[in-house]
Amino acid sequence: MDISTVWEDLAWDNGGKIIYLILDGAGGLPDSEKGGTELQVAQTPNLDRLAQDSSCGLLEMVGPGITPGSGPGHLALFGYDPLRCPVGRGILSALGIDFDLQKNDIAARVNFATCDRNGKVTDRRAGRINTNTNQRLCQKIKEKVTLDFDGEYFFETVSEHRAVFILRGSGLGGNLLDTDPQTTGTTPLEPQAQSQDSQKTATLVRSFIEQLKQVLADEDSANMILMRGFERYQPFRSLADRFKLKGVCVADYPMYRGVSRLLGMDILPRPGGMKQRFQALQSCYGDDYNLYFLHVKHSDSKGEDRNFDGKVSILEEVDRLLPQVRALNPDALVVSADHSTPAVMEGHSWHPVPVMIQGKFARGDEVATFDEYSCLRGSLGTRAGVDLMGLALAHAGRLRKYGA
Amino acid sequence: MDISTVWEDLAWDNGGKIIYLILDGAGGLPDSEKGGTELQVAQTPNLDRLAQDSSCGLLEMVGPGITPGSGPGHLALFGYDPLRCPVGRGILSALGIDFDLQKNDIAARVNFATCDRNGKVTDRRAGRINTNTNQRLCQKIKEKVTLDFDGEYFFETVSEHRAVFILRGSGLGGNLLDTDPQTTGTTPLEPQAQSQDSQKTATLVRSFIEQLKQVLADEDSANMILMRGFERYQPFRSLADRFKLKGVCVADYPMYRGVSRLLGMDILPRPGGMKQRFQALQSCYGDDYNLYFLHVKHSDSKGEDRNFDGKVSILEEVDRLLPQVRALNPDALVVSADHSTPAVMEGHSWHPVPVMIQGKFARGDEVATFDEYSCLRGSLGTRAGVDLMGLALAHAGRLRKYGA
Repeated sequence: MDISTVWEDLAWDNGGKIIYLILDGAGGLPDSEKGGTELQVAQTPNLDRLAQDSSCGLLEMVGPGITPGSGPGHLALFGYDPLRCPVGRGILSALGIDFDLQKNDIAARVNFATCDRNGKVTDRRAGRINTNTNQRLCQKIKEKVTLDFDGEYFFETVSEHRAVFILRGSGLGGNLLDTDPQTTGTTPLEPQAQSQDSQKTATLVRSFIEQLKQVLADEDSANMILMRGFERYQPFRSLADRFKLKGVCVADYPMYRGVSRLLGMDILPRPGGMKQRFQALQSCYGDDYNLYFLHVKHSDSKGEDRNFDGKVSILEEVDRLLPQVRALNPDALVVSADHSTPAVMEGHSWHPVPVMIQGKFARGDEVATFDEYSCLRGSLGTRAGVDLMGLALAHAGRLRKYGA
Repeated sequence: MDISTVWEDLAWDNGGKIIYLILDGAGGLPDSEKGGTELQVAQTPNLDRLAQDSSCGLLEMVGPGITPGSGPGHLALFGYDPLRCPVGRGILSALGIDFDLQKNDIAARVNFATCDRNGKVTDRRAGRINTNTNQRLCQKIKEKVTLDFDGEYFFETVSEHRAVFILRGSGLGGNLLDTDPQTTGTTPLEPQAQSQDSQKTATLVRSFIEQLKQVLADEDSANMILMRGFERYQPFRSLADRFKLKGVCVADYPMYRGVSRLLGMDILPRPGGMKQRFQALQSCYGDDYNLYFLHVKHSDSKGEDRNFDGKVSILEEVDRLLPQVRALNPDALVVSADHSTPAVMEGHSWHPVPVMIQGKFARGDEVATFDEYSCLRGSLGTRAGVDLMGLALAHAGRLRKYGA
């Protein structure tokens, strides 16, 4: 039983407005030298005041012990159980560069790689070429490689040695084996269809790689590509369709814009900075949306960089801007994260993230500060990340009664 | 969706070591004359210090209101949902006496019983004969009863009036009705196959019982047997296969050695006592294992005996030995129980059991003592017993990230 299907049945559009302020990777761990977690050490009077007016708790985003990637973490926040709604790496790579995927597009992840004169892989990452080189190579390939069929292909830089390949046309299946042998000293694998409907795709990919080898023959390191995670893009049921939510995304980073697009939100132009993002939210608030998603990236990046103080500064910067959001007076104001990124771990972690929901009908609790320990005593308890959407809808009055 | 299948996908062997210190039946209830639960009354400074360094919580082993047997309780602790991985009583009886079951063996529980001269059951437990008598009868049966087929049978004492029957050979199904009528005053039921593949088994069991009746005809009380829970043994997927864990079991009692064998752990020779068990753990710790299971039995037995003070003493004995375990400095040190056995109830109970996980990346909480009430405020919350394995793997760094 997926509880989100019940929310779907009960959802109505009563005009209630929800704001999601998502602080990427905000959850942390204590650093003994700093005297607490990033959220504990940060001076955040406005977040703390909001916690006093909110129902607080902790979200375990995907499941016990599971460290979420940003994609699954955000899917859960929006009421899409990541275990039931998996998104392949090819699709995420395309969404992650803000590529406008169309239904039935075939996407695959690409690594530039180095092969020796016998065609055997010597470096699966082509010496981690830089992004500029990657862009030059993509340009070169697109100029010289042509595929003769009733459609088109795209070949786009992600970063460093990573790119994404997209095929668009009719009669294309996504059921192909990886060409990446996952090891060196062997030749890349042939593109191979795993089902009849993907034969045409395999033929096109084979032709693409054959031509590309000629085009890259004069390159020092990146003279080949390896492909993984072929998948056909089937857009998810939208937030509007499922929960009667017209959503808008205010984010600078491509992955989050991509996930929002996957769920049918409108995407504002890149605001280009933290303050600009908060301003963009204010500017669009009068518009005809009822779910406003404001994404803060750097709390995660600073954690990944083991930069405890940097993460603290980002949280304090958010805190100073928070009154602008409160002034909008939404029916439900949610502050949370997609996963923890403790600076002491230099990466994502499985630890539950704090969450608070403020609104006219929030029951509240005794939580007086917004951090991992105080939220443990909150009235929302520790629960699955996917629960949040139901609670947000309820607080905004957007779920009718169940049964008579 | 069984979350443990996600752990399987994400598990890798990074070398992280996990210790499970399982205090059988440790959870309890307050005895008003003693001033608290067994864990509260026990003087356990080392367990309490560990709690201060740990993430604490409570585990509901099988489900709300469900009192686990030791088998299901331990399966849950090791990440095998007991509701999805049922083990029949016949299999558990065989495992419980440390019998080396082979794949496709047929096992059934046996009671010695008393029948009158008309063959009607007068006592389903043969006056609860003692274990010595049981052993004598098993010996007598094995000497005199022969089954003519391409295989062999085993007939082994469990304790008192209980024994276990095992058939090993080709073409044997386990789909047989019980012969135990579950009441007195009626004759035992005929061994009957429930499906074609079990006809051969039924014929062999019929022959076995016919011969056995002759052999036991001169016994006063135990002149018949009743059989229940026929089942074919299908080994579980091992901990190594599922979670990339090479496990070792340090336990004196057969049931726990049996469950460990079922999950593919290595089994150390019986240490023969509490101190010896802790020493055995230390001795094998350098070896090539990454899950060390140390089992303490008497916290349960004392509870079953309504011996509150005795249970307290066992917990205090464990506490004195705990520093030896901490000194091993594993990546994740787990202390918990398979179920509660409150002395005031003289038996297993459904009450959740306290749990703590200590390790470098444990988030911790404000819990300062290890007992049922303080753990309620812990950062792990109250959750399903089967969640523990995912959390233990995560704390030991043995789960990769989920999605991008």
